[in-house]
Order: sequence, then C-alpha cells, then structure tokens
Amino acid sequence: MISSQSAFGSARDTTEIATSLTMKNSDQTAHMKWWGWGHEDVQFESRAHPGFWPFAKQVLAIEGDDFVPREWNLETLKLPEPQVNERFAAKLHSFLQSHQITRDHKERVLHAYGKGFRDLFRLRRGLAAGAPDVVVYPESERDVCLILRAAAENDITVIPFGGGSNIAGCVERMDFNRTAISLDMRRMRRVLEVDAQSCTARIEAGVFGPDLEQQLAAQDMTLGHFPDSFLHSTLGGWIATRSAGMQSDRYGKIEDMVIALRMVTPDGILATRSVPKSSNGIDVNHVCIGSEGTLGVISEATMRIHRRPEMRVVRGYLFREFEAGIEAVHECVRRECMPSMVRLNDPDKTALSLAFRPPASRFSEAAGKVFKTYLRAKGFVLPQACLMLTAFEGNERSTTRQLREVQAIYRRYGAVGMGSGAGHSFEATKYDFPHIRDFLLDRDVTTDVSETSTVWSNILPLYRQTISALRAGILESKVQPWTGCHVSHTYQTGASLYFTFGFRQQTGREMEQYLCAKRAAQQSFIDCGATLSHHHAVGTEHLPWLAEDISSVGVRAVTAIKCGLDPGNIMNPGRLQPSPQAFEEWMRAS
Amino acid sequence: MISSQSAFGSARDTTEIATSLTMKNSDQTAHMKWWGWGHEDVQFESRAHPGFWPFAKQVLAIEGDDFVPREWNLETLKLPEPQVNERFAAKLHSFLQSHQITRDHKERVLHAYGKGFRDLFRLRRGLAAGAPDVVVYPESERDVCLILRAAAENDITVIPFGGGSNIAGCVERMDFNRTAISLDMRRMRRVLEVDAQSCTARIEAGVFGPDLEQQLAAQDMTLGHFPDSFLHSTLGGWIATRSAGMQSDRYGKIEDMVIALRMVTPDGILATRSVPKSSNGIDVNHVCIGSEGTLGVISEATMRIHRRPEMRVVRGYLFREFEAGIEAVHECVRRECMPSMVRLNDPDKTALSLAFRPPASRFSEAAGKVFKTYLRAKGFVLPQACLMLTAFEGNERSTTRQLREVQAIYRRYGAVGMGSGAGHSFEATKYDFPHIRDFLLDRDVTTDVSETSTVWSNILPLYRQTISALRAGILESKVQPWTGCHVSHTYQTGASLYFTFGFRQQTGREMEQYLCAKRAAQQSFIDCGATLSHHHAVGTEHLPWLAEDISSVGVRAVTAIKCGLDPGNIMNPGRLQPSPQAFEEWMRAS
Repeated sequence: MISSQSAFGSARDTTEIATSLTMKNSDQTAHMKWWGWGHEDVQFESRAHPGFWPFAKQVLAIEGDDFVPREWNLETLKLPEPQVNERFAAKLHSFLQSHQITRDHKERVLHAYGKGFRDLFRLRRGLAAGAPDVVVYPESERDVCLILRAAAENDITVIPFGGGSNIAGCVERMDFNRTAISLDMRRMRRVLEVDAQSCTARIEAGVFGPDLEQQLAAQDMTLGHFPDSFLHSTLGGWIATRSAGMQSDRYGKIEDMVIALRMVTPDGILATRSVPKSSNGIDVNHVCIGSEGTLGVISEATMRIHRRPEMRVVRGYLFREFEAGIEAVHECVRRECMPSMVRLNDPDKTALSLAFRPPASRFSEAAGKVFKTYLRAKGFVLPQACLMLTAFEGNERSTTRQLREVQAIYRRYGAVGMGSGAGHSFEATKYDFPHIRDFLLDRDVTTDVSETSTVWSNILPLYRQTISALRAGILESKVQPWTGCHVSHTYQTGASLYFTFGFRQQTGREMEQYLCAKRAAQQSFIDCGATLSHHHAVGTEHLPWLAEDISSVGVRAVTAIKCGLDPGNIMNPGRLQPSPQAFEEWMRAS
Repeated sequence: MISSQSAFGSARDTTEIATSLTMKNSDQTAHMKWWGWGHEDVQFESRAHPGFWPFAKQVLAIEGDDFVPREWNLETLKLPEPQVNERFAAKLHSFLQSHQITRDHKERVLHAYGKGFRDLFRLRRGLAAGAPDVVVYPESERDVCLILRAAAENDITVIPFGGGSNIAGCVERMDFNRTAISLDMRRMRRVLEVDAQSCTARIEAGVFGPDLEQQLAAQDMTLGHFPDSFLHSTLGGWIATRSAGMQSDRYGKIEDMVIALRMVTPDGILATRSVPKSSNGIDVNHVCIGSEGTLGVISEATMRIHRRPEMRVVRGYLFREFEAGIEAVHECVRRECMPSMVRLNDPDKTALSLAFRPPASRFSEAAGKVFKTYLRAKGFVLPQACLMLTAFEGNERSTTRQLREVQAIYRRYGAVGMGSGAGHSFEATKYDFPHIRDFLLDRDVTTDVSETSTVWSNILPLYRQTISALRAGILESKVQPWTGCHVSHTYQTGASLYFTFGFRQQTGREMEQYLCAKRAAQQSFIDCGATLSHHHAVGTEHLPWLAEDISSVGVRAVTAIKCGLDPGNIMNPGRLQPSPQAFEEWMRAS
C-alpha cells in the first residue's frame, strides 16, 4: 500500500466518492447486531488485516491465542419483566398500528443500550437492565406527538432512539420506577423537500447516513456529514448529540448545518424558520441541538446541503514527528487552505493504522521496503513517524490547487507523500474501525476512546498530559497500556484530539479497569481546560464532568429548560442533570 | 466620485484599513448626544453632502425649507422623580465608589432609551418615562456580581447598558413598580489576554468598537466586527443582541465568533470554556448570546480574532437591475469566492447613495457625465441601476485573486465597475448614515429601518412583497413613501435584506405613521417566512412577532431559562416575553 514512487503525485488519481455508501444489508432501517457493532452479517475479518492481531498482541503484551470462542445467546439473556401500563398500552394501540408497537425480547435487547464499552460488555455478560418495556416506531410527526402526549398523561419514560450507535450512554434507561418506552425514529426517513437554489433540504430525523446521502445524491446534493458511525446513525441522533463528520473541516459540525428544526416536546412542537441567520433573541435551535433527548424528539430538520463535489482525493503523508504534523495543519488553517479532512495520527496510532492495512502484494511489500529505506535516508526515525490522511474535494481545478498548496505547506514541515495507496486504504476501511473493538472484546481486550477539543496553544500540553494520565490509569491494574491519538476537526482557533486506548482485561476487574482509564482521560481534559467531548455527547459517560465544563450556572440553565418543556420529566430522564454524587453514580453504574 | 476610466481597475488601489477608527472624541467611553446619534460634537453636515437634501425633498414631495430650528433643552426635559430604595442605595455605596453611582439628570436621560425612532422622537418631545432611577458604572466583574446580588436582594430592576445604540428598544425600562438601575458597562473595556497562536482574545464586555480594535491592532490582530453602530456599541451589546458587522461575509456574525463567555446572573456566574467546538449537551454559550439582558450581564467573552489583513480594497459596481446583482452575489457564494463585504443596493437605495456623495470637483462632475453616457451606451436604464459595494481583503496575492474572480462573475451578470471612487466614498462615510435620521427628524421627516434574512429562493418574493407592504403602510397616511433596500450579509443558504423607509410627518400623527409602516414591514417578514430581525434584536419593536418566529414552544423555552436563572425577574424585565396582548401593548407604548 505504501509506494515510494508516489510522493506528492498528481490530483488526478481520485478515489470513488463515498465508496462505502452501498449498504451490505439492503434494508435501510436494519438494526445493528445486539452484541456489537455493524449489521449481523458484517464482522471484522482478521485475514483481511493480517498484520493487526500480531500488532495488538505485541503492544498489549498478549501471549498465545487460546481464547475461548463465545456464543452470544439471545435467549439466555435475561431481561426484567416488562412493566405494562394498561391504560397507556390501550392508548398507543388506539392511534398506532400493531407493527409500530412491540415488546419482543430481541427488540427490547436492541434498544437497551448504545455501543459503548459498558453497553457491549454488559450485553455480552447477559445483562440488559436498561432495556425498555416497550419499543414504538412512529411513522409520522403526528405519531410522535400522540405518543408523547400519551406518555405525559400516563407518566411514562420516553427514550428517543436513532441508530443506537452512541458510545457515551445516551439511550440507556436510568429510571426504573415507571414504564419506559424506546421511541425508535428509523421509519421516519424521507427527504421531504430539497431547495436546490438555497442549498437546503427538509429531512425527517430518523434517516440513516447512507439512505440520506442516496436520496440527496438523486438531486446531485450531499449533506457532507460523515461521522465514523455514518452507516448506523441518524440525522436526529447527530443533532441531539452535536455530532461531527470526518469532513467537518469543509462542511462544519452538525450544529453549523442546521437551518431550522422541529422538535416534538410533551408540551407541543418547537419549530423554527428556514432562515440562514437571525437576531430573534436566544437561538432556540441551540436549545434543541445537543439536548440528548431530554426535551423532546427532533422530528425533522432543514439542513444546509451542498452540490456534490466533482472529485475527491485522499492522500497519505508521513511526518517526522507529531509536533511537525500539528504545525503543518495549523499552518493550513492560518493560510486558509484547509482540506476537507485532515487526520493526523500520533506515532502509536500511526503504527496501528499501518498494522490495519489490507494484505500486501509481493510487489507492494517490496516497494514498502524501498520506501522505508528512502524514509531513513530522509532522516525519519520510523517509530516517531506520523501518518496524516488528507482529503481534498471540489472541481478538478480547485482540488488540484488545494492539493498543491497543502502539499507545499506539508513539505515545508518535512512531510513525505505516500501517494494514493494510503488514501485508498483509508477510504475503503474508514467505517470499519469500530469493528475492531468487537474482535478485541472477543479476545478479552478492552478498547475505548475519549475525545475533546482545545485551542491551538493547548494542543500539545493537553496531548502529553492526557497520554500520560491514560497510561497511568491503565497501569493501575498492572497491564500493558496502549494509547494512541489523532488530531482531526480543525478550526481557526483549535482542533479536536481523539484518544484511543486498550489493555488486557483482568477477569472480574474489567469494569473497574475501564472506569479507571476513562476517568483518567476525562479528568485530564477538564484539568487542562479542554471540554468533556468534542462530538460524542455527554450521556452517562461524561456526565460527572458536565458542571466543571459548563459551570454550575450553566447546568442550572439546562435544568430550567428541561423543567419548562418537560415538567413531568418523562424525556430521557437523568441526562444532562448531574447530581452532586454524579461521579459516584457513574462509578457504580454497571 | 464616479469615473469612467476606472472600470475594473487594479487591486493596488487600496483604501486605508478602518479609516474611521480614529475617534473624533478622544474619550473612549463618551456617551452619544441624548437627542440623536453620535457624539455631541459630531453632526450631519449638509454642505458635505450637497445633493442629499434636494434628493430627499424630491422623493418625499417636500416643498420649501421653512423648518423651525429646534433647541434641545435638557433642563426642561421632565423625568419622573427617582424612586429611591434606601437599603439598596446604602448597599451600593458599601462596595462601589461614589463616581460609580449617579442620579444625575443628564445621566438618567442618556440611559432612558436607545436610538430607535420612538426613542429619539420621545426625547425630542421632552418625554423620558423610561429613564432609570440610578445609573451604576461597574469597573470589574466583582462589581457586577455585587450589584446584581444587591439588586436581587432588594427587588431592583437591572437594565444592562452598553453603548445605548440599539434601535429595537432593548434598554428601555418596561416596569415602573420598583426601582430600576441602568448598569452601564463602558468602564470595563480592557482586552485581558490575547492568545495569538490560537487567534483568541479574552475581552471585557464594555469595550467600544474603536477602542477594541485599537487594543487588538497593537498586536496586529482584529476582531473583524464592524456593524454600522461600530463607533458607539460594545462587545457585550453585540453578543446580547446577535449583532452582525459589515464584513460578516468573511468574519461571520458575532455568535460565530464567541469561543467562551462569562455572564453574571442574579444566581452566580455562567462560565464556559475556551474550546473551538464541543459536544457538552445544550450549548450554553447560546443561552447567553441573544439573551438581550434578560438573564444577566455578559462580563467578558473570549472571541475568535484574526491577523489584520495586509490590504483592503473597496470597489463600487453598477448592475443593470437588482435581480442581476442578486444573481451575481449568489454566484460568488456558489463558487466560494466571497468578498469580505457585499452591499447591493436596490434602485432607490442606489439613488440615495449617489445623492449622499461628497461634493464633486468640476473634473469629476464632467467625468460623471461621461460615465453616464457610457452606461447608457451599455444599455443601462439609469433609474433601474443598482450600486454594489464590495470589499476584498487579505494579502496582496489573495486580494488580487479574489478581486479578479469576483469581477469576472460580476461582469458575466452585466456589471460595470465604478473603480475605487465609490469605494473610497463608502469607506469615508460608512458610519455616518445614522446621522441622516437626526437631520431629517429636524425637518419633520421620519426614517427608520427593518431588516431580516431569508433563503436565496425567497429573496426576491420577500423583497417585492415587503416593499409593496411598506409603501402601502406609509400611504395609509397619504404621504409620499420612500423605500429602499440593500442585500448584505450573505450565507451559503441565503442573505439579509435591509429595508429603509421615510416619509413626511403629519403633526400629531407621527407615532401612528411610524407604527403603521414598521408593522407593515415586520408583518411582511413573518408572512413571507423570514425572521423578525437578522441583527437588530427583538427588543420592544419586534416583540409582537416573536412567537410567530420561534413558535410558542420556543418562547416557553426562553421563558423557562429566564425563570431558572432570574427567578426574581429583575433582569431587563418584559423582554423576550411576549404577552398575549403583545401587539396591542406595542401599539400603545409611547
């Protein structure tokens, strides 16, 4: 995949736009497997990435391969007896059709959790206390209104559910004293209206990424939002959690794309107007964005969309060290020539990325050796080298210009081009990374992530402090830590830092180990002046740090909105509301 | 000023950056005159714009010049007796110095109103019922905290006051049952910290535009926020009202520039972190931005700043008609080559702009005639021509490139360049327009503005409908209407439309005439799907349309925040809270 001939090749060599859009599973609304990431028929194929497991074994000090293959048995997974509120059930059946309401065992399991480490660990151990009593599938905004009204009248907990891909604990039931329903939005999946002149589209909130892009592509448009969870997450989920896509450098975060929205609350519909900007007091779009299901259900949004770019090029570059890569990205920002994506891996994440490559042909293996020799000759010390993936898009002229300008900057910071091979490899596998966690969980390895953002002047101090804190947190259980980080989502004032960590599990102490590492990362963010999350939401996993992040008066503001729009506290209760014992509760929750 | 030689000249011909920064009045915190716009020693000089009054007389059908020059007598201006709460007064004196507290007659008048038509009309008639009982000048965030705590303990109304330049009625007292203080922030004017690497600056909220830019310029930085009110408005005011500067196309609206802020509420300080973007639940920055003083006092903000551009060029262009100009601007947006400012005047506003020019030399008068002949030869019908002012900035290379690209687009839409003359003229007078209103008020002419924003596909329908509604509204009193409009503040999805209107007053019916015209414009915005204001805030003047704009559930969300953070309703009460009779109250208020 790495070719020595390709250093700074021409922009002509494009990869297919959005190659991963084709669903392996033809059903646009299919659920992921209950025990892991992705559809049931998709899994991580070790032989497609032959270097990966040997790499993992080495960095995590794992000996041997004697793992007991586990069977995930849905039938033996114990759920609490569903709480049935007869009056509410009768009401639901009065306006929904029977295929819109279910108490099916598997459906309850599928809606019990998101896909965080804690979620999967519990499900794989047969624990699903967070399962809702009923799952409902509204098919129109009217359905949502009637469901919420019935829930309010009958004191029923409502947990909005999109793709269920959240890893911060946003969809888990936290309240067990009353009936809880999971309100699954995936059947509300239409693009209702495209205003091509204004570049806006009115879209139902339950649509998944590929489905949405297919509908927009029919009009030669794109939303430009491609989070790692793209295949399995919904527009409503993105907005409710303040998601960011891989190409946010060009298209912005999801909150930058919302022109108007409609949110059904227990008290009626909050609706805003399709206007680019306003001065109409407090911006109530931003009351709904990031509300994590605590105020209501986002039923549709009018989003800023774009003409699909004529071409897209992804390239890989190697920098001598992380610092030079960061400087180069920052220089691109300063010179206002930002690619649509930059993803700069630190040395450890670079090693992981290289280990994740598809099997090499004999030729490319040989070429790789030549390239390594070339790098050494250029003064690279390979374990310190950092892989930067960069995407450019636009028409041929603008893409070529952009590529030329960015490459000139990279070169000044000592980068060497890896040509289109690394880019192709990234494009082909960009949505596959979450599968690794399942593969490793099968092998008693915990992996998870914590991500944040900070201003440029604080990037390196935050990076160093967090890596050090994470390693110390993992080392508390005396296992070999693996940590890596990448920089992405750049802004004029700063960027996001995305940390990945992994370690061998100690039987019986798995959760404690996870909490120790996760806590170390999150506390480091807060201690260093960064934020609890750049695009993964608060959920349960980051709630203990909310008051430190937005101040206790900020939390009171959020609570006030909650009390005003949801006086019965039926919407996703417990979220965004840290109690004084938030941290202890977090540690206890399992 | 118009020269036929200059069509699409070179980018070298730069105008001075921010020429108007030099204060005519050396005191950075001086108040405006109480009876009009600008400092007391500055006024509209008719002889500097010899074409203006003849133009106004013609379009408004005014005959003769027999206006009685009026004397504004501060002493005869009657104020309500100040309500004195002794306990509160004693408390204030316990932590503030005597120069920070005043009940002075003039100070009370200066803080009675902003600078809207209603405000000036009332003051000029000797009415100032909105005057506060006391004016306080905090000099630190601690002062603000102590003042708010004392106010909360003693049930005192607090009206935050920046420059007092607001024209939507944001600083007028609406509650007469208790003591009211105006909390004037202008002494908190320091740039506290510049992080040049991250391009952020921590700034006290009471700083005025020129003062702020001077402090930032010392470090070669700029905020890039230049609203029409720049000379007389403050950072805190901009944030509390969601202001937009002339160069918003490049730098964004003020809400796009806020990285973090601190707002003192009666219940403590809401403080957020300096991070470029986050996913920490509901974005509480946006709870404070646009809150119009109803929740607390913004004490400081960390803002995104920029290196000062090396050069700035302002150019004028003429389009055959408004539609072509709009298409040209939209095409620039589509091609992602936006200048830092575009201001496209409709034919009537173009005529006003040309009439506002400084006196012409004999040469330029002759050149102007040649240019007119040239235009006619090019097929221009002069009364339909539209003036587009466009600013470019950056380094020499980027500015030249931008200018070339934009001009190529303009040319395709039939534009003719007017060279640097029109640009110089605009730069020299860009902050002077509000003075016209005083000049015309002296001559019994009412002028005012209403502005909004909408998506591209709705720009022309909204424009036509609003001009028509405005003219009909003015014609109800059977006087000749004058209306004009300009497009500015462009976005990918739409732009702002800024309407200006004027008419002769009918003695005794002045307020009714104003209400009729203003109401027609605002109702047209709402009927056409636009917003009540793009950058002037809600205040009193747009409050009747708030519920239609953000929905009644949106209003309830705002009310909930207000109740949560200001349970005693001491902060700027009555704002952002439309009563069911909002419209009737608006009509009655005088």
